[in-house]
Amino acid sequence: MKKTALIMAGGKGERFWPRSRVNLPKQFLSLTDDGKTMIQLTVERISPLVDIEDVYIATNANYRELVKQQLPGIPEENILCEPIGRNTAPCIGLGAVHVAAKYDDAVMIVLPSDHLIKSNEIFKDTFVNACEVAEKGSNLVTVGITPNYPETGYGYIKYNKEACDGVAYSVEKFVEKPDLDTAKEYLADGSYLWNSGMFVWKVSTILECFKKFMSSTYDGLMKIKAAVGTADEDTVLQAEFPGLESQSVDYGIMEKASDIYTLAGNFGWDDVGSWLAVGRIKENDDNGNVVTVNTQNCVIEGAEKLIATVGLRDMIVVDTKDATLISTKENAGEIKKVLAKLREEGKNEYL
Amino acid sequence: MKKTALIMAGGKGERFWPRSRVNLPKQFLSLTDDGKTMIQLTVERISPLVDIEDVYIATNANYRELVKQQLPGIPEENILCEPIGRNTAPCIGLGAVHVAAKYDDAVMIVLPSDHLIKSNEIFKDTFVNACEVAEKGSNLVTVGITPNYPETGYGYIKYNKEACDGVAYSVEKFVEKPDLDTAKEYLADGSYLWNSGMFVWKVSTILECFKKFMSSTYDGLMKIKAAVGTADEDTVLQAEFPGLESQSVDYGIMEKASDIYTLAGNFGWDDVGSWLAVGRIKENDDNGNVVTVNTQNCVIEGAEKLIATVGLRDMIVVDTKDATLISTKENAGEIKKVLAKLREEGKNEYL
Repeated sequence: MKKTALIMAGGKGERFWPRSRVNLPKQFLSLTDDGKTMIQLTVERISPLVDIEDVYIATNANYRELVKQQLPGIPEENILCEPIGRNTAPCIGLGAVHVAAKYDDAVMIVLPSDHLIKSNEIFKDTFVNACEVAEKGSNLVTVGITPNYPETGYGYIKYNKEACDGVAYSVEKFVEKPDLDTAKEYLADGSYLWNSGMFVWKVSTILECFKKFMSSTYDGLMKIKAAVGTADEDTVLQAEFPGLESQSVDYGIMEKASDIYTLAGNFGWDDVGSWLAVGRIKENDDNGNVVTVNTQNCVIEGAEKLIATVGLRDMIVVDTKDATLISTKENAGEIKKVLAKLREEGKNEYL
Repeated sequence: MKKTALIMAGGKGERFWPRSRVNLPKQFLSLTDDGKTMIQLTVERISPLVDIEDVYIATNANYRELVKQQLPGIPEENILCEPIGRNTAPCIGLGAVHVAAKYDDAVMIVLPSDHLIKSNEIFKDTFVNACEVAEKGSNLVTVGITPNYPETGYGYIKYNKEACDGVAYSVEKFVEKPDLDTAKEYLADGSYLWNSGMFVWKVSTILECFKKFMSSTYDGLMKIKAAVGTADEDTVLQAEFPGLESQSVDYGIMEKASDIYTLAGNFGWDDVGSWLAVGRIKENDDNGNVVTVNTQNCVIEGAEKLIATVGLRDMIVVDTKDATLISTKENAGEIKKVLAKLREEGKNEYL
C-alpha cells in the first residue's frame, strides 16, 4: 500500500529561546553539528519509505516560507497551514483528509518535526514493521521509546508483554505523565514505553476513529476534505478548522480505541524538548568563542561575542546576536516567563 | 602646612573584567550611576583639602593618556609614570620625592584611586583631622575603616582604645588578613579597623622612615629626586626605579615604625575590589536591557544586548560590547583565570 507521511511542524519552540524565535522556531533550527535543521533531518529520515510528493507538513501560515526554503522538494499543496493551533487531533485529521483526497487508501506515518534520532537505519526498519502492522486490519500503531531512566515529563504506553505478533505488542493503555516513584515502577516493570507521538495507521482507519470518537471533528474534516483541490479550499479551511475541538490525538482517540499496537523504537531517540536536551546531544567544549573556568555540566552556546564562565554548575548559557539567556537547568521551564515579560513590555523584537 | 595628595592609579583591575580591560582598568571606569570614573571621584573628594596643582597621580605610561583625558586639571608633570610596578612603598616614595622637590616640607595624603565613599563631607572632616595629627611631630597616620562584618580579605589595624588624643588613636600593630574566626574576634573586640591603604604624613616624616627602614630604596629615591625637573628626570627614573625593592608600605614601613596613629573613617567606604562589591553599591533592577525571572542577589550589568536570567542566585553577569562574563559570586576570584586562558590562546583583543 502507498505510504505517506505527515510531519507536524507548527510548534513555537519557546523553550529554545533565544535561539528559537517566534519567526524561527526550533524545528527550523540546526541544533546538531551537521548544520541540518530538525525538520530537514525528519524528512531525510523518512525518505527511504515515503516519496517526497507524499510528505505533508502541518504548520501555520507564519512558517510556510520557512518550510518552502528548507524543504524545496515538498509540493506546495502539501504544506498544510492550520489557521489556528488546535492540538494534535485536528492537525492529524487535516493531514488525513488531504491524503484521503489523493489516494483511496494509504498508510499514514505521523511524526513530530523536532526529534533527534541517532540511527536512521534502525528507524527505517522500525517503521517498515510499523507499516506492516498498520496495513493489517484496522490497527492503530504507535512507536514507543524504551525508557532508560524514570522520566516524569512524558506519557507512557503500557503494553502486554504476552501479546506480541513478532514485531508489535498489543497496547493495554496510555498513561499520563507519572510522578517519580510511579516512573520508577514503570521502568522496573519493563512493559512500559515512552509515548513519543509517532504513529502509523491507514487513512481509512484513523478517519473511522474520528467518526467514532470525535464525531463533530469528523464532520468538519469531511467538509474540509470535500474542498481540497478546489477554489474554495482555503475558505472552507478558515471557516471549519478553528471550530474543531482542541484535543490531543492521545486523549481524543488512542485512549478510547481498541486494536492499538506498539513497537519499541530503539533507534536513539531524543525529543530535544528544551535546552536541557542539548546537553545530552552535543558536546560543549572550550572552543570557539567560549572560555570556561571551573565550569561543569553546562550547556553553553556561543555566538559572535566571547562568553566566559567561572564556577558554573548545571547551567544553560545561550548567546545570540541580540540576546543572551542565562538560566539554571533546574529552572529552564521558566524560560517562557522571560518571553511573557518581553511581551508585556512590548519588546516584541526579541520574541 | 601645605597639603598635597598622591593618588595611586597603576592597578590593572583584572577582577573587573570584562568591564575593565588592560587598556582601561577599573579606576578609569564609572561603576556608579553618576557617570564619573573612580579616579575622577577620588580627585573631587580631596579637592576641598588640596589644590589641584598639588595632586599627584602615580600610574604607568600605558595610562598616562587616560589620566590626562579624565583629569585635565592635573599638571602634566604631576602624572608620575612608574617604569614597572613595584608595590606601594616605591610608588609612595616616588610621590614623596616629587613633593619634596617642590616644597621644603608638606603634608602628603596618600589615597588609592578605586575606593567609593558615601559621604564626601565626613571624608573631608576625617582628613582635616588626620592632617592635623600628621603635622604634629613625626607621626604616621592611617585612616582605618570601622568594620561592620568579619571580612577576611583585608588586613586590620589594632589600636589602643585608651590612647586617644581626641581624634586619633595610637596604633599597636598591623595584622595580616585573618581567618574567619579571628576576624570575628577582631569585630567583637572593637579595637580593630580595616587597613584601607589611606595614609597621611609629612613628606619629611615618610622620607625619614624610608631612610631608616628601607635604606637602599631611600638611596634610589634620592637619585630620582635630584633629577626631578631636569632633562635627566626620565633617564634616572628608568634607571633607578626598577631596581627598588618591591614592597608594600605596610610591611616595609608601617609595621616597623613607631608613632603611628589611626582615625576611624566612618564615611561609608567600599574598596570595590571586585564585582562582588558592585552588588553592595548599586541597585540591580529589572530595567534597561535586563529581564530577570526568579533571580536573586545577583550583579547584572547589561550593555546593548538583551540579557535574560532565569533561576539565578548569587551570580555575576557582565555584558560588554565584545564579551560576556558569567560567574558565581563564590568563584569570582577565578575571573583572572579567564584572562590567563585568553592570554595563552593569544586572544589579546579581549584582555
